[in-house]
Amino acid sequence: MQTLRLNTETKKELLGNLLGRNTGSYSEYEKTVNDIIDNIRANGDSALFDYTLKFDKCSLTKDTVKVTRSEIEEAYKELSPEFIEVMKKSAENIRVFHEKQKRNSWIETNENGSILGQRILPIEISGIYVPGGKAAYPSSVLMNVVPAKVACVERIVMCTPPSKDGKVNAGTLVAADIAGVTEVYKVGGAQAIAAMAFGTESIPKVDKITGPGNIFVALAKKACFGYVSIDSIAGPSEILVIADETANPRYVAADLLSQAEHDELASAILITTSEEVAKKVKEEIEGFLKTLSRADIIRKSLDNYGYIFIADNMQDMIDAANAIASEHLEIITKNPFETMTKIKNAGAIFLGEYSSEPLGDYYAGPNHILPTNRTARFFSPLNVDDFLKKTSIISYSEDALRKVHNDIELFAKEEGLTAHANSIAVRFE
Amino acid sequence: MQTLRLNTETKKELLGNLLGRNTGSYSEYEKTVNDIIDNIRANGDSALFDYTLKFDKCSLTKDTVKVTRSEIEEAYKELSPEFIEVMKKSAENIRVFHEKQKRNSWIETNENGSILGQRILPIEISGIYVPGGKAAYPSSVLMNVVPAKVACVERIVMCTPPSKDGKVNAGTLVAADIAGVTEVYKVGGAQAIAAMAFGTESIPKVDKITGPGNIFVALAKKACFGYVSIDSIAGPSEILVIADETANPRYVAADLLSQAEHDELASAILITTSEEVAKKVKEEIEGFLKTLSRADIIRKSLDNYGYIFIADNMQDMIDAANAIASEHLEIITKNPFETMTKIKNAGAIFLGEYSSEPLGDYYAGPNHILPTNRTARFFSPLNVDDFLKKTSIISYSEDALRKVHNDIELFAKEEGLTAHANSIAVRFE
Repeated sequence: MQTLRLNTETKKELLGNLLGRNTGSYSEYEKTVNDIIDNIRANGDSALFDYTLKFDKCSLTKDTVKVTRSEIEEAYKELSPEFIEVMKKSAENIRVFHEKQKRNSWIETNENGSILGQRILPIEISGIYVPGGKAAYPSSVLMNVVPAKVACVERIVMCTPPSKDGKVNAGTLVAADIAGVTEVYKVGGAQAIAAMAFGTESIPKVDKITGPGNIFVALAKKACFGYVSIDSIAGPSEILVIADETANPRYVAADLLSQAEHDELASAILITTSEEVAKKVKEEIEGFLKTLSRADIIRKSLDNYGYIFIADNMQDMIDAANAIASEHLEIITKNPFETMTKIKNAGAIFLGEYSSEPLGDYYAGPNHILPTNRTARFFSPLNVDDFLKKTSIISYSEDALRKVHNDIELFAKEEGLTAHANSIAVRFE
Repeated sequence: MQTLRLNTETKKELLGNLLGRNTGSYSEYEKTVNDIIDNIRANGDSALFDYTLKFDKCSLTKDTVKVTRSEIEEAYKELSPEFIEVMKKSAENIRVFHEKQKRNSWIETNENGSILGQRILPIEISGIYVPGGKAAYPSSVLMNVVPAKVACVERIVMCTPPSKDGKVNAGTLVAADIAGVTEVYKVGGAQAIAAMAFGTESIPKVDKITGPGNIFVALAKKACFGYVSIDSIAGPSEILVIADETANPRYVAADLLSQAEHDELASAILITTSEEVAKKVKEEIEGFLKTLSRADIIRKSLDNYGYIFIADNMQDMIDAANAIASEHLEIITKNPFETMTKIKNAGAIFLGEYSSEPLGDYYAGPNHILPTNRTARFFSPLNVDDFLKKTSIISYSEDALRKVHNDIELFAKEEGLTAHANSIAVRFE
């Protein structure tokens, strides 16, 4: 983990390096993924079960692909009552936060005889993908499903790969049940994405696919975009802490490590106006690394994408934070709320020394599926809008159209679209 | 244009045919587009000007690529005062409608000592692409730019290809000026998209690119997705009219033709419970075709993607409309508002016999950039949200975190993320 002085030069280098995480060429996998998609489209279940046998070493049929109620009951028994209770509390917090994002349709009658409006309706069926094995995070299940449920999506389908013996991760199943998934299928990989995008005999065709996955899953989602809606492709995790001399170095160090442990591509950055804080954070990191189970991953992540920057003043920290547009931004300064008002780009902002980032990952309620890789400049956390669609409503009375029909005909003719003009003109011939 | 009875069989055929419009493989162009993008990223302006010379036969420099104020004044002089006046009225209607889509940030203090919120901010810089030549529609300029302006986007950049003599379509320039574009550049094609996505010496890097274009433009947008946000890829235009025996066949026919004239892939469909209406609409179409300037295009479009369906009852019409999820849906029935409440999937709905579709294209205010190709099941009209982004706000007091820290640590440990658990634990050690 380098310590550098923040200036135009180092900031530019930093931004280049962060974006550099994304340049891997995956074209070698694209053909494989496209072949899988084509095969699923052409052969449905039979191709799906073939792939599941090949990749997951699990033999499925139309009768066993869907998780049964008794499998879900079994999963509950595998988990501790305390964990189940925490998941329920977390789901409730997520629900309460996302309820506030809901919006109403509106319709408005105007004096000129026109009625205009916007209907907002849920999509009918959403699909969520959950990775298997170690990458199966029950918290992600809650974060993907609850917003769809709040949006009143009727059917919420989940796909997740089975183990060899046909079992599905118990945490995934219980989280799905708590969050309100309506059906779970034991399929994974690009084949699961294709099955949800196009439908097979067993898997329903969905309107939108969300949820993380490996490179095959990500490429399949991208390839199916347009046939279905997808969430944005998530990159490696990031945390940026901006801190002044009031920050507790031990807390800052612990928070940086919490994101660095995700994977070797994760990025953890501290920008501080205090050389003292910078020095102590580095020491604390070394101390923690002796005890943490994922220290190997953390070391690699910090070596490649970990930085400590010393900034001259608060404004430089804010400018850098806006340029980096971090997925997670912690503000640990004397007046964090005041600092926050100057931040334009961030996925989620954590204010003050007790708002540690994992609080947002697991518990507080806002979504932990956030824009990465500097895309917070234009993308948003997963939210209820992602499961809604809008329809415009237009109604003009005869009088209302009569008043403006010449204008519309003129505009259409200027664009050379005479049948457009004609459709207005015939009503007043 | 075929007349068929609406039943499960014909509906299935119809949906297959509509989606079939999309199956063209464009992989042959992908390499060209990727090469252009790579070249722009590597060589900036110099590559951009080379392509403009090659494809648009126009020689540009850093000093001439940007449209000047006097060129805009010139453009005003080329248009009739009436046309300028109509564009201004249209822009105002679009503004008024989209103002109603705006949303506020919110922040909420809870009894337990937590503060949660959602900030909503405009993206900083948006880019709009406008095709050149015959495909330059001033109405599309208004529809793309005004929502960005309403969202308070600070910089709105437009790219549009020049003619050989370095001029830009006058209608495009005036519409851009009325709508509030801050700068216009004379570049087009995939090279313009790449320039906006990655920035060059002359063209600023933008956060989002919207606007229609040919296949090269569409592929470039798709390839740059992730580096920038893009709007959804628009397919050929569509209109669906559902009508009972009260509909005026002359109006229905004229409205079907208004969309069929767009291009040979456009689709115009009537579903009616009245055989009489079906018959007369067909006759009216034949009559109109004798006089319309774009009759050749219309004939091809109707031959391939035009249908008249006779439905047994209102419910069948509604079900079919929901399955087709048309970009434009006209409801011309005895009680159009009642029928509308049963429609789940449509881009824009036009109610009653005076709400002809071109009213929405040019004038009423709702956006005419709408989801095509059955994607209204999950996509929305272009709207103010497309130019906004959200950030979550999380702040817990010491007390608030103390009450729940065990829960969070437990959740993190269950997921095997010990550094996550540690970051909470250190605050209470």
